[in-house]
Amino acid sequence: MGQDKKGKIYLVGAGPGDPGLLTIKGRECLSLADVIIYDNLANKVFLQYARDQAELIYVGKKGGCHTMSQDGINSLIVERAHQGRIVVRLKGGDPFIFGRGGEEAQELVMAGVDFEVVPGITSAIAVPAYAGIPLTHRDYTSTVAFVTGHEDPTKEKTDIKWDKLATGVGTLVFLMGIGNLSKIAKRLMDHGRSPETPTALIRRGTVAAQRTLVGPLGDIGDLAKKNNVTPPGIIVVGDVVRLREQLDWFETKPLFGKRIVVTRAREQASGFLKSLAQMGAECIEFPTIEVVPPESWDELDSAIKALESYQWLVFTSVNGVKYFLKRLGALGKDIRDLKGLKIGAIGPKTAECWHQLGVRPDLVPGE
Amino acid sequence: MGQDKKGKIYLVGAGPGDPGLLTIKGRECLSLADVIIYDNLANKVFLQYARDQAELIYVGKKGGCHTMSQDGINSLIVERAHQGRIVVRLKGGDPFIFGRGGEEAQELVMAGVDFEVVPGITSAIAVPAYAGIPLTHRDYTSTVAFVTGHEDPTKEKTDIKWDKLATGVGTLVFLMGIGNLSKIAKRLMDHGRSPETPTALIRRGTVAAQRTLVGPLGDIGDLAKKNNVTPPGIIVVGDVVRLREQLDWFETKPLFGKRIVVTRAREQASGFLKSLAQMGAECIEFPTIEVVPPESWDELDSAIKALESYQWLVFTSVNGVKYFLKRLGALGKDIRDLKGLKIGAIGPKTAECWHQLGVRPDLVPGE
Repeated sequence: MGQDKKGKIYLVGAGPGDPGLLTIKGRECLSLADVIIYDNLANKVFLQYARDQAELIYVGKKGGCHTMSQDGINSLIVERAHQGRIVVRLKGGDPFIFGRGGEEAQELVMAGVDFEVVPGITSAIAVPAYAGIPLTHRDYTSTVAFVTGHEDPTKEKTDIKWDKLATGVGTLVFLMGIGNLSKIAKRLMDHGRSPETPTALIRRGTVAAQRTLVGPLGDIGDLAKKNNVTPPGIIVVGDVVRLREQLDWFETKPLFGKRIVVTRAREQASGFLKSLAQMGAECIEFPTIEVVPPESWDELDSAIKALESYQWLVFTSVNGVKYFLKRLGALGKDIRDLKGLKIGAIGPKTAECWHQLGVRPDLVPGE
Repeated sequence: MGQDKKGKIYLVGAGPGDPGLLTIKGRECLSLADVIIYDNLANKVFLQYARDQAELIYVGKKGGCHTMSQDGINSLIVERAHQGRIVVRLKGGDPFIFGRGGEEAQELVMAGVDFEVVPGITSAIAVPAYAGIPLTHRDYTSTVAFVTGHEDPTKEKTDIKWDKLATGVGTLVFLMGIGNLSKIAKRLMDHGRSPETPTALIRRGTVAAQRTLVGPLGDIGDLAKKNNVTPPGIIVVGDVVRLREQLDWFETKPLFGKRIVVTRAREQASGFLKSLAQMGAECIEFPTIEVVPPESWDELDSAIKALESYQWLVFTSVNGVKYFLKRLGALGKDIRDLKGLKIGAIGPKTAECWHQLGVRPDLVPGE
C-alpha cells in the first residue's frame, strides 16, 4: 500500500428520495468529497451538498442503457482514490441492500483502498412507511423479507426458494419487481399464498409524486395494468397492508401531490419551501426575483467616501446591509469607520443582521 | 377533532447508535420538539439536539423493568399532543421495524392526533454493515429476512414458520435474539439449515464498543457462552457472514475500541472529537479547561472607557474577542467605537472571528 496520499472512499446511501431522509454523516461526506460518483438517484437534491469544486460523475442508466459497466465503475472509483482524493460513491437507498455495495467494497479492498460504509434508509422500509404500512406489527406478523424482484420468477435455476418464501414469511417486500409483478404473484399463489392477501404497489415513494395502489394478490397484476403502473416501484405482500387504511399519513397531507413553483429569490425561499414540503407539496424552485448588484456603484461609493457628512444610515433589508458592507470593504474601510453615524434597521431580520455583526442599531421601528 | 391547537406527533427513528446515522429530518424534529418521549436508546447523544426548554421523558426499562406500560406511553403521547404541543416519540433504529411504531400510530389515529413517521436506519441492516457484512450480495443471496428473536422458539403456538424460514431465505437476521440463541440455532438446524452456516453475533453495533463473534451455526451457542455474550445484540445467519473477513472496515480502524477522554474546553473540542471518532475511538468529553469570566471586569472596563487613549488592540484568541465585545456592549458601546484603533489578531481563528464581524484586522502575524 502506498504510504503517501491514499485517498478514501465512502459508500454512502442516499435514502429513498425524501431529502430529509439522508443521514447527517451522509451529508457530511458529500460536503467533504472531491469526487461524487452517483447513479440513478430518486432525488438530485442531494448533489447540492457538494462543494463547488467537487467532480460529479453520473454512472447510471441513460434511456435504459447503462452509461458504464460495473467493471468500469469499479476502476473509476479505484483510480480516483489512488489520486489521493476523497470519493463518495452515492447510491439510492442503502448500499448493502441490493445496491452492489458489497461487490464494490470487495474491489476496493483488492485495490488496497480504504473504505467506509455510510448506511442509508432503505426504500424497502421507508417507502411502505410513507404509504402507511409498518412492515412488522404485533397483531399481524413478526417476520419480514426483502427479495429482489428483478429476476424472472419463471427462470429454471433460481436462488429464490419460492416454495418456502411464499408462506414462510409474514410480510414480503419485492424491490425492482414491478416488471415481473404478475409472475411474482402467480409464483406466490402457486405455492400457497392466498389470492386474498392484501398487496400494495408503491411508486415514487417518499416524495410528492408518490402513488400507491392496493388490491388482493390475485388481482394485483390486472389492476396494475389497468392503472398503468410501470417500474420502478416496490411491492408489499402481507396482512400489514391493511393498516394503510388507518395509517396513511403522507398521501393525505393537505397539499399532497401539488407541484408548486416558488418564485422567491433562492436565498430567501428556504423557510417557505420547508413549510410547503411539510404540507406535502413538491416545490420547484424558479427564482424570478434575483438580487443583483446595481449597474454602477458610483453613487454608493461617493456616499461612503463622505460618510462623515451623514448622521444616519438606514437599512431596509439584509441584502442592503450585505452589499453596503461589501462596498465598504472594497473601499478599504470597515465597520469601525461607521463611528459617529446612527444606524436604523427596518424589519426584525435587518436588525438581527446588525446584531450578529456586533452592532446595536440605534433605531428599529416597531412597525 | 379540536379546531384549535391540535399538536403533532413525530414518530422518529434514532438509528442504531452512531450519532451520524440520525437523519437530517430526525434532527430537525428533535430541535423543534416541545416534548421528547424516548426509551432505551443506543446513544443518549441524540438528546443534545433538544431545545433547552424541551420536556424530556424517559419511558424505557430501568433495571430490567419497564418504567411505563405501553398503554401508559400511548396515553402520555396523546395527552401531550392534546395540549397542542409538538411531540417527538424517539425510538432506536426504525419505528416500524419491531419498534411498536405501528401500534402507537394506531392509538394516535384513534385519538384524532396528527402524526408523521420519520424512518430511522434500522440496526438490522446497519449493525451488520458495520461488522463488514452486506446482507445481500450477488454471489451469495438475493433474499434477506428480519425476525424477532424475542419469542421463545420452543413455544407451541408461534407466528414464526421455522420449517420454511430455516432454508427458505438466504440471510436471516434475528433482533433481540441473543437470549434465545441456542434455541434459535437448534430450530434452524432441526429444519435443515446446515450447522456449518456462518453466523455472527454483534453487540453494541455502530459504536466504539462494538464486538463481533463469528462461528458456525452448530457451535455458536457454546461460543457465545464461552465468550460471555449477553443481550442485547443482533444475530446474522447466512453465507454473507463470510464477507466480513474481507470487508471488516470498522473494527479495524486505528483507534477502534479505544476510549479517549478529551479534556479540551467543550466549545473548542468538536473538531478534535470528530477526528478521533473518524479513527474509531469512543470519546468521553471531560473538559478540564473552562473559559470563565474574570473575577472582576474593572480593569477591562476602564480600558474600554478610555479607548481613545490606545493605538492598538491585540487579541490572542476567539474567546478574547468574544468577551471584549460582550463587555463593550455592556458599557453601551459597539464595534463602531473602535474607530481609530488598529486591531491585531494572533492566530488564524482569531483573525477569522474578526472577518466574520465585518472587520479586517490591521495585523495578522504569520507566525
